Amino acid sequence: MTDTVIASHSREVAIGFDRPFVIIGERINPTGRKILAEEMKAGNYSRVAADAIAQAEAGAHMLDVNAGIPLADEPAMLAEAVKRVQSVTDAPLAIDSSIVAALEAGLAVYRGKALVNSVTGEEDRLETVLPLVARHGAAVVAISNDETGISEDPDVRFEVARKILQRAQDHGIPPSDVVVDPLVMPIGAINSAGRQVMRLVRRLRSELKVNTTCGASNVSFGLPNRNGINSAFLTMAIGAGMTSAITNPLHEEVMQAVLGADVMMGRDPDCGRWIARYREPGAPAGARGARRGRRRRG
Amino acid sequence: MTDTVIASHSREVAIGFDRPFVIIGERINPTGRKILAEEMKAGNYSRVAADAIAQAEAGAHMLDVNAGIPLADEPAMLAEAVKRVQSVTDAPLAIDSSIVAALEAGLAVYRGKALVNSVTGEEDRLETVLPLVARHGAAVVAISNDETGISEDPDVRFEVARKILQRAQDHGIPPSDVVVDPLVMPIGAINSAGRQVMRLVRRLRSELKVNTTCGASNVSFGLPNRNGINSAFLTMAIGAGMTSAITNPLHEEVMQAVLGADVMMGRDPDCGRWIARYREPGAPAGARGARRGRRRRG
Repeated sequence: MTDTVIASHSREVAIGFDRPFVIIGERINPTGRKILAEEMKAGNYSRVAADAIAQAEAGAHMLDVNAGIPLADEPAMLAEAVKRVQSVTDAPLAIDSSIVAALEAGLAVYRGKALVNSVTGEEDRLETVLPLVARHGAAVVAISNDETGISEDPDVRFEVARKILQRAQDHGIPPSDVVVDPLVMPIGAINSAGRQVMRLVRRLRSELKVNTTCGASNVSFGLPNRNGINSAFLTMAIGAGMTSAITNPLHEEVMQAVLGADVMMGRDPDCGRWIARYREPGAPAGARGARRGRRRRG
Repeated sequence: MTDTVIASHSREVAIGFDRPFVIIGERINPTGRKILAEEMKAGNYSRVAADAIAQAEAGAHMLDVNAGIPLADEPAMLAEAVKRVQSVTDAPLAIDSSIVAALEAGLAVYRGKALVNSVTGEEDRLETVLPLVARHGAAVVAISNDETGISEDPDVRFEVARKILQRAQDHGIPPSDVVVDPLVMPIGAINSAGRQVMRLVRRLRSELKVNTTCGASNVSFGLPNRNGINSAFLTMAIGAGMTSAITNPLHEEVMQAVLGADVMMGRDPDCGRWIARYREPGAPAGARGARRGRRRRG
């Protein structure tokens, strides 16, 4: 029963095996968003704030904040974005950068216990990111690749995750503060990507007993009807034991898949959240109409 | 690698672990369909024929045929329905009745190898249905309840399934011709119904190595947005190892869930069926745009 607790100044979110799936909003990220990137470079964070509010309202439990713009002052921008987001929402944040100085700048201004996104199994990353995470008492996303790249063999990725966990413990970071990203490959390019990642998620949960997350949208890269594939992925991954994902809460189909999967896993008591969201106007509250028995017709 | 082969006079469908999920169309069933029931009683099978064609066109691989109308001559009606359906489609059929004489009448006119729906673990059912199945060289759906009813304990239901399999073998029916229905309870009434059935499906597959089916729509009974719950159930059940379901192929959301789950399980080579169905007009064929690498944005 591993719980990873992430907090803002006023709110805690726990990622855990028996808890509702945690959605980490992916939108605050200038990669591929030209207008957002231009605005952030010009010091205009109004879209960042609006994206934060919209995602929280749509049901995101946490928000990922990334300021990765080539040739820009990423540490300063990430710090500014973190401050701005925390001024408009109490959702706990994932501070997201591949630049250690940016993670450091973001953590310096963050109020609460952040999720640092991310560390890999590469030696130089381990020895720069983990001390930073430990110093701030944060949690960290561990990405299961290393110097040799991303293995197509889920068992190799499992061993990388195990190595990161051990190294984190050497730095005083408990396994409950490490959330493993098993890495989801585009299934349009690698037909076995789904089976690979499900197997890995199951092993991470049953053997290492860690929480998991992933950039869920990657699985559908290059395919039509991406929300349909993303929904199938998330539902199946939740069934396999995944406990959080970085995804877009503004996609109704994706939210429905997550809420439906929570119902299936018994994590929506009396289907209360499902009913509150989907009840037709005028219909009675609760699932009182439900009875036991075998019926086939809907 | 258990394959259950069901056939019409001219087409075979295999239900199996490494095969695309088999959708058995549920529509030809007068339960709760007053107009259909009236028409069938009056000897009018035009709606039965139209439902057969519509479901096959929508993507059903097999069709369930049920003629359960109280106080009607069910054996004669089921035989007539089977004949009528086989005259308009080559989809293999599940012959569905709780009355042994009706199953017998349906099997007598059926051309091919049918799926008999169903036998339970009740002694009198075992000793009347199984000899019939064996005599016709058919396959059979084994429902995991017995004289004591439906246990809420999935391990008890597992033992009932094991008993039916053994008894089938005593009658010369191989395990590959038994498709187990683990029984899906309405999750609005039993919060743990999803976890129960997933656990049971995994055990049926890994320990008994049998194919599985279920009346999928039952899970959402009494809840709003039933297609959303049904889709979550089917996706997660396919991830757990379920290999077929009796459901409504006319619901686009349900079909999308099944096709998406097949992609995830690596059973849609090069995502060909997904792309064919969802490609936007004018888009290039194939998933050639997909590349390896980590991206988050859709």
